[in-house]
Amino acid sequence: MPSIDVCYSPELLHLYELEGKAVVAVDILRATSTMVTAFAHGATDIIPVMQLEECRAYAEQGCLTAAERNGIKAEGFDLGNSPFAYMNGQVKDRTVAITTTNGTRAIRMSEAAQEIIVGAFLNLEAVAQHLRELQLDVLVVCAGWKGKFNLEDTLYAGALAERLQGEFEFENDATLASLYLYHAAKDDMVTFLRQSSHVRRLENLEIHKDIEFCLQHDTYNVLPVWKRDRLVNLKEFESLGV
Amino acid sequence: MPSIDVCYSPELLHLYELEGKAVVAVDILRATSTMVTAFAHGATDIIPVMQLEECRAYAEQGCLTAAERNGIKAEGFDLGNSPFAYMNGQVKDRTVAITTTNGTRAIRMSEAAQEIIVGAFLNLEAVAQHLRELQLDVLVVCAGWKGKFNLEDTLYAGALAERLQGEFEFENDATLASLYLYHAAKDDMVTFLRQSSHVRRLENLEIHKDIEFCLQHDTYNVLPVWKRDRLVNLKEFESLGV
Repeated sequence: MPSIDVCYSPELLHLYELEGKAVVAVDILRATSTMVTAFAHGATDIIPVMQLEECRAYAEQGCLTAAERNGIKAEGFDLGNSPFAYMNGQVKDRTVAITTTNGTRAIRMSEAAQEIIVGAFLNLEAVAQHLRELQLDVLVVCAGWKGKFNLEDTLYAGALAERLQGEFEFENDATLASLYLYHAAKDDMVTFLRQSSHVRRLENLEIHKDIEFCLQHDTYNVLPVWKRDRLVNLKEFESLGV
Repeated sequence: MPSIDVCYSPELLHLYELEGKAVVAVDILRATSTMVTAFAHGATDIIPVMQLEECRAYAEQGCLTAAERNGIKAEGFDLGNSPFAYMNGQVKDRTVAITTTNGTRAIRMSEAAQEIIVGAFLNLEAVAQHLRELQLDVLVVCAGWKGKFNLEDTLYAGALAERLQGEFEFENDATLASLYLYHAAKDDMVTFLRQSSHVRRLENLEIHKDIEFCLQHDTYNVLPVWKRDRLVNLKEFESLGV
């Protein structure tokens, strides 16, 4: 039986063997939720980059550019990091180059893995189903907040573990803790997360609507995976009416 | 109001400001539980060291030496890492040089802090009371397991947060998660931890009795703190009849 483990921060990634594994990269608020939303609304591919300048340069290649720093859209870019900005038809059939504080880092640091999948509550079942088919050991890589543990990525890891329970082994402490926390939070995740420093920081930026959206389960049947130098969608995009 | 935060691994310590803070170093299974037990049974000071050879060299200075690697007493040392080995009068009025897999590392890596305190369930209230008096910001540094998150140190962080609730701010995600997990586990921590990989690894080594002992709350009124190059006990040793 394949296993599932959780790495709470990119700063701990060196402790994990990535080769031959499926990594699920997650940054619920908001990078990976936004990437999933972009694919659901027709983006053809997404290029996650670390630096603002590198991201800006992709405009010359005809890409849309998206950047967020400290929770706010960076100046001089087409898009920020709010999923709602990706729903107006603008991203359809386009390549989006995106740089975000934490999420991009989690993806790019996982390149030794056999497969990198972008996870969010929005595409939870699509990822779970893909992992059942892959039958590889899974490592959920939480983006965290500037390298530190955060609750929302951990809750996602718990939600994914719950979906895979009985089909994957998860006897390690990080997965068990994630599952316990998800069980404590699942009936009202918005209230649960309102205690979180990161969420309160975002609420100060008036993006409460984003947070509620990013916590919705199974809204989109999309499956972003890393191919060579970018993310592509393994499923035909399919918006479920949001 | 001072704050309390939790660092889940020494590998994340570089993300935290230590200066001016009180660090509570914790390695429940079993380094810090054993250190607390040693002080409760009359040890005058404890020298935590990283390497086996460095530890062995302290024998020439008249110290007792204690070493554990991968859960087992290392060959050629006076003591291992089981708290019961420190209860037979052997450590009374002696200096103990001790090296352990994870716990020593958490202590030595925290030397930039204003005060380093050794925490365990066994001296939970003694530490909480000291922190109330100090009125410094607190960082609980979990030893983890080979750098990874572990449940038992996290539960201790949650237990300490519960004791300090209302007197310390803890709005960060790691402290909130620790508190939730402690609430889920506290009525039967042995059963809760039996799911843990680390605890099952230790149970294979037949130290179930140690685990039950290390999860007891408030057994000893001792307060090991770091002074210059070693740990000393700020309270007169006091065994509560164990």
